[in-house]
Amino acid sequence: MRMVDLIEKKRDGQELTKEEIRFMIEGYTNETIPDYQMSAFAMAVYFKGMTEKERAELTLAMVDSGDKIDLSEIEGIKVDKHSTGGVGDTTTLVLAPLVASVGVPVAKMSGRGLGHTGGTIDKLESIKGFHVEIDNKQFIDLVNKNKVAVIGQSGNLTPADKKLYGLRDVTATVNSIPLIASSIMSKKIAAGADAIVLDVKTGAGAFMKDIEDAKKLAKAMVDIGNNVGRMTMAVISDMSQPLGYAIGNVLEVEEAINTLKGKGPKDLYELCLTLGSYMVFLAKKANSLEEAHKMLEEAIQSGKALEKFKTFIAAQGGDPSLIDDPMKLPKAKYKIELEAKESGWVESIIADEVGKAAMLLGAGRATKDSKIDLAVGIVLRKKVGDQVEKGESVATLHSNFENVDEIKKLLYQSFTISPTETKTPPLIYDKIS
Amino acid sequence: MRMVDLIEKKRDGQELTKEEIRFMIEGYTNETIPDYQMSAFAMAVYFKGMTEKERAELTLAMVDSGDKIDLSEIEGIKVDKHSTGGVGDTTTLVLAPLVASVGVPVAKMSGRGLGHTGGTIDKLESIKGFHVEIDNKQFIDLVNKNKVAVIGQSGNLTPADKKLYGLRDVTATVNSIPLIASSIMSKKIAAGADAIVLDVKTGAGAFMKDIEDAKKLAKAMVDIGNNVGRMTMAVISDMSQPLGYAIGNVLEVEEAINTLKGKGPKDLYELCLTLGSYMVFLAKKANSLEEAHKMLEEAIQSGKALEKFKTFIAAQGGDPSLIDDPMKLPKAKYKIELEAKESGWVESIIADEVGKAAMLLGAGRATKDSKIDLAVGIVLRKKVGDQVEKGESVATLHSNFENVDEIKKLLYQSFTISPTETKTPPLIYDKIS
Repeated sequence: MRMVDLIEKKRDGQELTKEEIRFMIEGYTNETIPDYQMSAFAMAVYFKGMTEKERAELTLAMVDSGDKIDLSEIEGIKVDKHSTGGVGDTTTLVLAPLVASVGVPVAKMSGRGLGHTGGTIDKLESIKGFHVEIDNKQFIDLVNKNKVAVIGQSGNLTPADKKLYGLRDVTATVNSIPLIASSIMSKKIAAGADAIVLDVKTGAGAFMKDIEDAKKLAKAMVDIGNNVGRMTMAVISDMSQPLGYAIGNVLEVEEAINTLKGKGPKDLYELCLTLGSYMVFLAKKANSLEEAHKMLEEAIQSGKALEKFKTFIAAQGGDPSLIDDPMKLPKAKYKIELEAKESGWVESIIADEVGKAAMLLGAGRATKDSKIDLAVGIVLRKKVGDQVEKGESVATLHSNFENVDEIKKLLYQSFTISPTETKTPPLIYDKIS
Repeated sequence: MRMVDLIEKKRDGQELTKEEIRFMIEGYTNETIPDYQMSAFAMAVYFKGMTEKERAELTLAMVDSGDKIDLSEIEGIKVDKHSTGGVGDTTTLVLAPLVASVGVPVAKMSGRGLGHTGGTIDKLESIKGFHVEIDNKQFIDLVNKNKVAVIGQSGNLTPADKKLYGLRDVTATVNSIPLIASSIMSKKIAAGADAIVLDVKTGAGAFMKDIEDAKKLAKAMVDIGNNVGRMTMAVISDMSQPLGYAIGNVLEVEEAINTLKGKGPKDLYELCLTLGSYMVFLAKKANSLEEAHKMLEEAIQSGKALEKFKTFIAAQGGDPSLIDDPMKLPKAKYKIELEAKESGWVESIIADEVGKAAMLLGAGRATKDSKIDLAVGIVLRKKVGDQVEKGESVATLHSNFENVDEIKKLLYQSFTISPTETKTPPLIYDKIS
C-alpha cells in the first residue's frame, strides 16, 4: 500500500477502505508517512469529504493510535459531554454535580487549555485546596463512591489526532467537517466514554458561525458515535452572545453555584437542564427525556445537586464552605462598570470580543505558559433583548489593574444598542440524535 | 505574509497576487516554507486551478528561483522545442540539424533522463567520438559558427520546480494543468529560449491520454509563453502508437539519418516538418509557415540538412563517416522477429508497452544509475492500419541476450490484429498558437 495512491483515491472522490485508513493513520503516527502527504490528503478531504463509513474508521484508527482510558471499573454507563467551545460556557461546572446527584457517573478528564478563560480544572482550582493530583485508582474509587471526580489529562491519547490537528492548523484544512468530527469524537472515545452528549455552538462567538454548518457537524458526530457503538446526541445552541453572565474562572464558579441553587442565569440553567437530560437518559437513569428533565429540576430544588457539588469538592481537597459562602473566593482588586453610552435595547454582544476582553484582563491563557489570574473577568449585566438606560452598567469588569481603558474600548465595540426593541435570540436551535 | 493564508486563498478559489506567488516560491526554494504547506497548496490548485495571470507569475517565479542560461551572445532568435514525451520520439535528432541548415540557431541543452530510451545526448553518443563535454564559450561559438550544438545540463536551473515536481510526484498532484504548464515553461525559459515550439502528445502512450486535456495543456503553455514575452506555438500530435519505427538509441539515430535523407517513416517526417516550420517561422527565417515548410523540404532534398548533421557531429568530436555508413554504428548481437500470430490489419500498438519492452532490452534507464545498452531496442515493421499476414514479422527485437520470451510476450500483448480493415490514426490533431 502506498500513501500516494490513497491521496489519489480520495482526490478522485473514492471511498477508502478500513485497511487503507488504518495504514494511513498508523503510518502517520509512527512517521513512515510524512506531513507533506498527510496535508495533501487533508486538502483532498476538504474538497471531497468522507463517507459515513470512512469517518467512523478514521475516528477508531485515531483512537487506536495511542492510549485508551479504561473506565470499566466504574459502575454504570459513563456519559461524557463535549462543547465545541464558546465564551462564558459554565455548563461543565454545573452539569458534573447535577447529573451525578441523580446517579449518573461523571468521570471527567479535563485539561487547562488555551482560551478566553482557563479550563474546567483552572476554574475548580479557584476553590482553595481543590486539586486533581489523584491517581487512576483514587479517581475510579471516587467516581464509584460519589459519582463524580475530575482528573487531569494523562497518557498519550490520540497522538494521531494531535499531529493531524497541528498540521491542519498550518495548511488551511481545519475547516473540514469530517476532520473536525473525527477529531472530537476520537478524543472522547479514547477518554473512555460509553455515550456522548455534544453541545455544538453556533453564532458569531462559535467556531461554526453558520447554523447549517453547525447542524452538519452535529450530524456528523452523532453518526460517528452511533456507528462505533457510542450512543451520541447533540444540541445546537446559541453562541451569538456569551452564555450566562460570567466570563472568568472564579466568576464562573460563582455562577455555577448560583445555578445549582436555582438562581443562575436563565439561558445557562436551561442549557444545563437540556444537556443534563440527555446525559441522564443516555446513562439509562430515566426512561424519557421528560423524566430526566424532571429529576434534574428536583435535584436543584431539593438542594441535592448543590450538596453533590460540596461532596465532590471536599473529596478532592477543596474547602466546601466556600460554596456556601462564595464571597470568600478570590476577588479582583477593582470592579469597574461599563456604562451604556445611550438608552435603548441591547441588539448584539459579540461573544468573541467579550472573550478577548476577559483574556486581556488575565482570565485566560494566550500561550501554554501564560499564567492565569483566577479572580478576574467580566460579568455581563445586560444581555441581548434587555432594555438599558444611558449611564446604566451593561457589564462589570473584575480587574487586578486599574487602567482598563483599552479593554473598555474593546467591550464598547462589542455591544450594540438599538433605539428600538430587540429580541432575545433562541437558546437552542436544534437537537440531533 | 503567511503561507497558510495563501493556501486558504487558493482553497477558496481566489487569485494570488504576483507578490504572494513570489513569496511562496522564494520561501519554498530557501526552505522557509515547508513541504507540507506546499503540498496542501498544490492540492488546492488541483481543485481550484490558477488564472492565466497566476500561471505566468508562477512560471517567472520558478525561473528566478535559480540560474538562468544567457544565450544573448548567440546571434538570432533562439527557438527551443519541447515534447511532452512519448515512445520512439526521434524528432529532436532530426530537427536540430534540419532547422539549423536553414539558419535557425539551435542551442540545445539536453539531459540523459529516465525512460524507455536514453535522452538526446545518449542517442548522439552512439556515434563514436561524439561528446558534450564543452564549455559555455565553446558551445556559444559552435552555435554561432554552425547554428547547432548540444551541451549537457549544468547549473542550478529552476530549483523551485525540481523541488515542487518531486513533491507533486508523491502527493497525487502531478496531474494539474497549471502546475504541469508552468513547470515545463519555466525550464525552457530558464534555459534561454526566446521562443518555444511545443509538441504535446496525446493518446495511450502519452501523459495526456485524452485529447481535450492535451489541448488544455497546450493552450495553458502557449498562454504562459505569450504572457511572459516568449512567442510560443504548440502542436497536438498522436502518441496512441509509437512515432516512427525505431525505439532505441542507435536505432533512432539511424532513423533520424534516414529521415534527413528523405527516406524516414512518413509520420516522423511529417511531424518534423510541422514542428520545424514553426521553429523557422518563430525564428523569423520565413514569413509564413508555408514558406518555412518549403525551405525545410528543400533542405532535405538538397542534402543540406544531412550535411549539417555531419558538420554538427564532427564539431563535437563524432565520426561523420558513420552517418554515411550507419552500418558501422554499434549493433546488437541478436535480431529476433516478432511474427504475427494471425492475418489481418493492425488495430492498435500500445506505445507504453512497446516502450517498456525496449527498456527491458536495456535501451532505457529505470533508475538514475542504470547503464544503457545503446545498440538494443525495437524496430516496428508494421504500424496501425497496415495489413499483415500470419507469420510475417510485425517488429524486430535488437537484443544482446538471446532469451527474449518474456519481452516477446509483452509485445504480443501490445499488438492487436483485427480481421477487418483498420485506419491509420491522424498524426496531428490540432495546432495552437
